[in-house]
Order: sequence, then structure tokens, then C-alpha cells
Amino acid sequence: MLSPSSATARFRAGGTERVGTLRDGRLLTSDGTAYDPAEVALLPPVRPPKVIGLALNYADHAAELKLDVPKDPALFFKPLTSLIGSGEPVIYPEGAQYMHYEAELAVVLRGPARRVRREEAYRYVKGYTICNDVTVRDWVGNFYRPPVKAKGWDTFGPLGPWMVDELPAPDDTELRTYVNGELRQQGNTRNFIFGVPDLIEYISEFMTLEEDDVLLTGTPKGISPIRPGDIVRIEIDGIGALENPVVAEAEG
Amino acid sequence: MLSPSSATARFRAGGTERVGTLRDGRLLTSDGTAYDPAEVALLPPVRPPKVIGLALNYADHAAELKLDVPKDPALFFKPLTSLIGSGEPVIYPEGAQYMHYEAELAVVLRGPARRVRREEAYRYVKGYTICNDVTVRDWVGNFYRPPVKAKGWDTFGPLGPWMVDELPAPDDTELRTYVNGELRQQGNTRNFIFGVPDLIEYISEFMTLEEDDVLLTGTPKGISPIRPGDIVRIEIDGIGALENPVVAEAEG
Repeated sequence: MLSPSSATARFRAGGTERVGTLRDGRLLTSDGTAYDPAEVALLPPVRPPKVIGLALNYADHAAELKLDVPKDPALFFKPLTSLIGSGEPVIYPEGAQYMHYEAELAVVLRGPARRVRREEAYRYVKGYTICNDVTVRDWVGNFYRPPVKAKGWDTFGPLGPWMVDELPAPDDTELRTYVNGELRQQGNTRNFIFGVPDLIEYISEFMTLEEDDVLLTGTPKGISPIRPGDIVRIEIDGIGALENPVVAEAEG
Repeated sequence: MLSPSSATARFRAGGTERVGTLRDGRLLTSDGTAYDPAEVALLPPVRPPKVIGLALNYADHAAELKLDVPKDPALFFKPLTSLIGSGEPVIYPEGAQYMHYEAELAVVLRGPARRVRREEAYRYVKGYTICNDVTVRDWVGNFYRPPVKAKGWDTFGPLGPWMVDELPAPDDTELRTYVNGELRQQGNTRNFIFGVPDLIEYISEFMTLEEDDVLLTGTPKGISPIRPGDIVRIEIDGIGALENPVVAEAEG
């Protein structure tokens, strides 16, 4: 199920920024024009006030990094300047040794919200999209250092291709990453350590969640190096595919 | 020199948000009305797209925390939802053991900017203000964990009272923190490990700096506990004073 029936995209066509709804594989704007998604420049589907990242939310990924599973959610922020749409190039920085993708279910929130109980958390979910939480592992150091440089470079936040209003089962959804067509990462959100309601309760205890904030939910096992020239495609069942080429810094 | 001649404030008066310029101790709006700063609700002087924090930028502060001085700037993000103006209450969360202030020179940037060389960095400085980078030490863990909860609570980012266009010497400016009138922290930006031009060069190598982004520059030695009922006042020569009461969570 790769083409959801109810999805909203932001895109640029004819030099103008537009919002469209996916209908029969085409993006329909409010004035009735239909665009082929393959022929427009997709943008991140929302303009979030903040992007809250989450480290180590799958036990198998913590194990592959030889790190302990945290007792509380290990949060960080991804800067908005890192966000790009599906199709836009991810820059491979000069001097980076080990750059990798991270396939993540991204949750778009409704706000403002504070002190949301987990039982009511789904009321504050507006939709879902896909994030590639691109990381240069060399600059993470100890995994718990704030990864501002490691995950915050311009272009390190592909988000899209669009936002779906609903997922059949946010806690039982498959994610797959392909590099140049080869399946490299496969996981399922049923292996979350902290589920979406847990995260919304935990975070909203101390921080106001605002309309269109994006909450990343961590990546499963299966990270591996990417290099300039690679095409990274992340699929999440019920949403679609986020695909971005990697280009060397000089070409960027 | 606590009342600069060229300062811009944002404030709320009569239910409306206004911008004013400080003239002879009063805030003058573009329609010619003058307000007493003591009788308006000051807001953070800018609406930054992002707030970039900096840990351990004074050797004496690293020493008091028994931490090594980092080789590269230790960056983190402060969420915009944490920002409050001078006069607004800082919430003391239930269950916190050791909450403290951090007096910091806050630099307001011009953007967009990428790959700024340090020689040209001051061109990208729009002004200066004061930040109290409020922290609950219990939740920092190892100092390098991303301090999303420790520094990101709503109200943990007092910013103000206004922005000055210029400082006589950004790299030789005194900061003082008073709690209930008692001097608790005193430092000078001449003890920066990374100066403002170094930071702008370092950060803009990988991340676009946007108009009104705020760059915090770290705190000197002298942190100490604050509790509900305390009044925290931070003075920076050439800017003014940022003063906030601390209130218990239930009263917040």
C-alpha cells in the first residue's frame, strides 16, 4: 500500500508554492489543477515550528551501535534549515567518513498542547510522513552529544513525500530503506521502545507542542554508509516513498 | 552603563504587541507613543527561527563542573517555546533538585548566511541581548546529552530586556547575576574559549544562519541553585538587566 488515498503535499510548480491533495496519483490543488508528483519539486509537507528527534528507539538499533537502551526518551532537535523535500539532494560534506541514512516514521502534531495523557495522545496527531534523519556518525562522538553538526547540516532532513492523515496501525507499520535499489534496512514500528502516545505524554509534560511540530520516532537496525552518487529511498507502508540523491559538497 | 541609547524592544501594552525604541528610559513606538518599560509586558526582543546554545565556553565554568574544555564548540538547540520576556516567571518544575541560572551574552544574527569567514563575521551580527539559559542540572546527566528536557522546559529561556545594535566590545563585556539582590555570578566575555566570530564561522560552515537567529555564548563560573520565590537578575554592561521571578510549577 504505497499510495495513500488521503495525503497532502506542498510543492513548487511554475515558480509558485502550492498545496495539493493526492487523488489517483496526481496532486490536485484547490483551483482544480492536477500535477504529476514526478514533475513538480516536492517540499517538506509541513512547515514545523520545531522538529523533535529521538535517538535509540528500537532495541535492535541500540544493539548495532553497542549502546544501552535509554530509560527515558533520548531527545534532540533537528534544525528547520536541514529540511528538504523528496527529490532534493542531500549534501555529502567534505571530510565526512561515515554518513548514513535513518528511516523514520515522522508524526505531525496538532497544537498547542501541554500535559497530554497518553490515552488522549492520538487526538494531537495530525498526520504522518517519512523522515530520513541523515547523520554523519564521525561527528556524533559519544551518541549522546547533542548532534547539532552530525544531524543538523543543511539538507540532512529529507521529509515527505507528503503527509497522510491516518495510518492503519502507527504501532505496526513497516519501514524499508533501499540504496540504489538494494534493500538495506527493514523494520517495523511494533519494535518501538517508546510508542507515539508515550512520546507525546513525555514531551508535553515539559514543552508546548505546537501546530505542525514534527516528532521523529527513531530508526530500526540496518544503518549503513552512503556516498555521493547514491540514491536513498525510504518506503513506509501507508505513506509512500521518500527518495533523495546524495551529492558531494562541491556539486551541491 | 546599563541604559544603552540604541535599543529595540518588543512588548505588550493595552492587549497589543508593539515594537519600541528606547529613548531616555522610555519605549517609543513608531506612532510617537512613549511607554514606561516598567509598566509594559516585555517580550523576547526578536522572534528567532532558531536559538543555538553553547555549552562550556568559559574555562572557569568547565572547571566548576569538572568537565574538559571541548575542542570544538559544544552546541545544542533551545526550543522557541522556552522563550519568555524580562519580568515573566520561570517555572520551577515539580521534582527538580538543582535548578540554576546561566548568564549569557546572546547574539542576534543577520541572515541568511552560510560559510562566513571569521574576518567578516561581525557583518552578520544584528545586535545583542541577554539570555538566562535556565537549566535543571539533574536532567543533564552527562553534560553532553542533548539537554532537551534540562534546558527546554517552557519558560527556561528568558531573553531580553531588549536588543542593542552595538556593544562597545563584545569580547570584553561584563556579566553579573544577582539572586534576590545578592551577587552570585560575575564574568567577562574576554574569557570566552570561542569568540563570536569563531562561532559564526564554525556554525555557518554546516548550517544556514537565518535572520534573527539567536546564538548563545555560554556562561562563566558561578552557577548556584535557585528556588521558587527567588528573583534572578542578570546584568550585562552595555545592554541592561534581565529580571525574572522563579515560581513553583503549581502556581505557574
